[in-house]
Amino acid sequence: MREVAIVGIGCTKFGEMWNKSFRDLFIEAGLMALRDAEVSGAQIEALYGGNMSAGMFLEQEHIGALIADFSGLTTNNIPSTRVEAACASGGLALRSGIIAVASGYHDVVISAGIEKMTDVGAEKAMDALASAADREWEAEVGATFPGLYAMMARAHMHELGTTREQIAQVAVKNHYHGSMNPRAQFRNKITIDTVINSPLVADPLRLFDCSPITDGAAAVVLVPAERAKEFTDTPIYVKAATQASDTISLHDRRSLTSIDATIIAADRAFKMARLQRSQINVAEVHDCFTIAEIMAIEDLGFFEKGAGGPATLAGETAIGGKIPINTSGGLKACGHPVGATGIKQAVEIVEQLRGDAGKRQVDGAEVGLTHNVGGTGGTVVVHILAR
Amino acid sequence: MREVAIVGIGCTKFGEMWNKSFRDLFIEAGLMALRDAEVSGAQIEALYGGNMSAGMFLEQEHIGALIADFSGLTTNNIPSTRVEAACASGGLALRSGIIAVASGYHDVVISAGIEKMTDVGAEKAMDALASAADREWEAEVGATFPGLYAMMARAHMHELGTTREQIAQVAVKNHYHGSMNPRAQFRNKITIDTVINSPLVADPLRLFDCSPITDGAAAVVLVPAERAKEFTDTPIYVKAATQASDTISLHDRRSLTSIDATIIAADRAFKMARLQRSQINVAEVHDCFTIAEIMAIEDLGFFEKGAGGPATLAGETAIGGKIPINTSGGLKACGHPVGATGIKQAVEIVEQLRGDAGKRQVDGAEVGLTHNVGGTGGTVVVHILAR
Repeated sequence: MREVAIVGIGCTKFGEMWNKSFRDLFIEAGLMALRDAEVSGAQIEALYGGNMSAGMFLEQEHIGALIADFSGLTTNNIPSTRVEAACASGGLALRSGIIAVASGYHDVVISAGIEKMTDVGAEKAMDALASAADREWEAEVGATFPGLYAMMARAHMHELGTTREQIAQVAVKNHYHGSMNPRAQFRNKITIDTVINSPLVADPLRLFDCSPITDGAAAVVLVPAERAKEFTDTPIYVKAATQASDTISLHDRRSLTSIDATIIAADRAFKMARLQRSQINVAEVHDCFTIAEIMAIEDLGFFEKGAGGPATLAGETAIGGKIPINTSGGLKACGHPVGATGIKQAVEIVEQLRGDAGKRQVDGAEVGLTHNVGGTGGTVVVHILAR
Repeated sequence: MREVAIVGIGCTKFGEMWNKSFRDLFIEAGLMALRDAEVSGAQIEALYGGNMSAGMFLEQEHIGALIADFSGLTTNNIPSTRVEAACASGGLALRSGIIAVASGYHDVVISAGIEKMTDVGAEKAMDALASAADREWEAEVGATFPGLYAMMARAHMHELGTTREQIAQVAVKNHYHGSMNPRAQFRNKITIDTVINSPLVADPLRLFDCSPITDGAAAVVLVPAERAKEFTDTPIYVKAATQASDTISLHDRRSLTSIDATIIAADRAFKMARLQRSQINVAEVHDCFTIAEIMAIEDLGFFEKGAGGPATLAGETAIGGKIPINTSGGLKACGHPVGATGIKQAVEIVEQLRGDAGKRQVDGAEVGLTHNVGGTGGTVVVHILAR
């Protein structure tokens, strides 16, 4: 299989974008990526779009054709494919684009992610998000996502001794990182008290433990590695693109305190990349809730099981620490337009590896990782990228 | 890129399956394909699932994880990816699986398609289907799919002289083919009078010009061609897998009487396969409405523009004719569970090329083609398969 490189990136501001439509957001991110890669639309050979639920949010399916059309890419009638795996849709769009280039079917490919969530009210948004869980065995009996992750948090605290303060520190650290990211939905710094005193959502999770409802889009341009230097002086190479599934419902899992699909996708990724955990300099992980980041850094193998909370409180996952996690602000502070998140994670890592991350720059970052979760862990996608 | 072969097929009965759920249907088709290929679930390395709109039909997204889970494939935590392009979702799942095998990422892959449409009423089903059109510029001003295809039919009659009888003969021929297919939703033979005297839906299209609302699922097993003989004595080889997009809305197109994405995807396919139109012995084309089949056989290059109607009336597209079209009964008589259709087309062609099509067998079929359309032609996927 051919090696693949990322030669262009684009990402909109994340937030409540009242004055921008689904179509506007996609076009903005796509054009930024094309400009960054210095390619014209005529050079693009295929498009992969990650989107969770435009059907439920906007009553619009056939998203591949829509985004190709409104980006002007139908002049070449390029193949355009929408992929979906709930909140991991963006990660899947990235992996699908990588496979398409690796296969030799296409040379210059855009992988993009998009979600427009704020055009419906909070109740409908929650219901659309609940469609990432098992509708028949979870959602219909009232298990919302905050409720499901609250059970994981409670189990993690009970079994592994993780404290309320350690969990809250994830939000504090990610808001601190987000305060340095011009794209972030929330740029305000907070304290552990802010989190612990915020309204209760699903015990023990409070408002500041939860990622927000967000609009946004992101895109990357992929090419065969041997052609990368035609497009940029600083290509970022794809060292691994792996994916794992698990039971869609939480109650069928081996454990409430680990996400097995993360463990397996990560094992596959490190094997594929022939790299060690210690060689990762920066990572974007799926912190849809604060507890999810603690589970992720443990399941990815950056910390022993149960050591994620103490490491977070000790600052080891902040910029300047042992392994900076979610320098973008993560889902918590940068925002979580579900279909876009997996691509935004790659955009952040590419900026870090290029040395273009400004105030958020991790010194000497050479290798980075992205970790994107669908639902409570029914799908996990991991990518390892390197200079 | 590696060559790919189909070594297993499975397809449920199509129809109003009141006693089978989305999950039941997928499992049934998947197990049939595994048994046919004589592979165990443990050998499957990845899953691609085509589904248009479980979000709107069942309030369920995260379809990849769901189908992997309920098929028992999460024991290996295989990557499972849902793809969507409205009614071309199944064709895309096939092409995505082929690319995954061609890339070397995975060896033994299932591509499946599924739709459960009859759990909601006709009005909600029509609305879900309308999400394949441009919601803002078509559906919201009342353009349903029968309405959009009626405009194409009217233009085709006006510009090319196609007659009401010629169009009706598509349904007559497909019901005749369906009468010999145990999987078909409708197995009753009809006459031109049946069509012409059926209730008007959108002038000039009548009830018997329209494909039905259907439940069903289908699956195929894909492997690298060099490994095909490990699984079967009669592998069917993928000669081409191509895809093209166009504007999502009909009013932006060059023509109302052709689907350009069909013309382009077919040109790409014949170039990739290094075959001529005259070498195709049997084809499954996207007859969501009768007029769509006439446009398809012209746009694919089997007949000159304007010659599709007369050829149909002359019996050239029936079994025994010049090029048998839709031996399964097509979308019209076999049924149209939208996400499953593209895979069912491949299942039918594989049966024909294996010589296993029973009463529907096209003598000496060596090469077959499938043609799957999303919406009014925003996405088209074409495959060429050969013994």
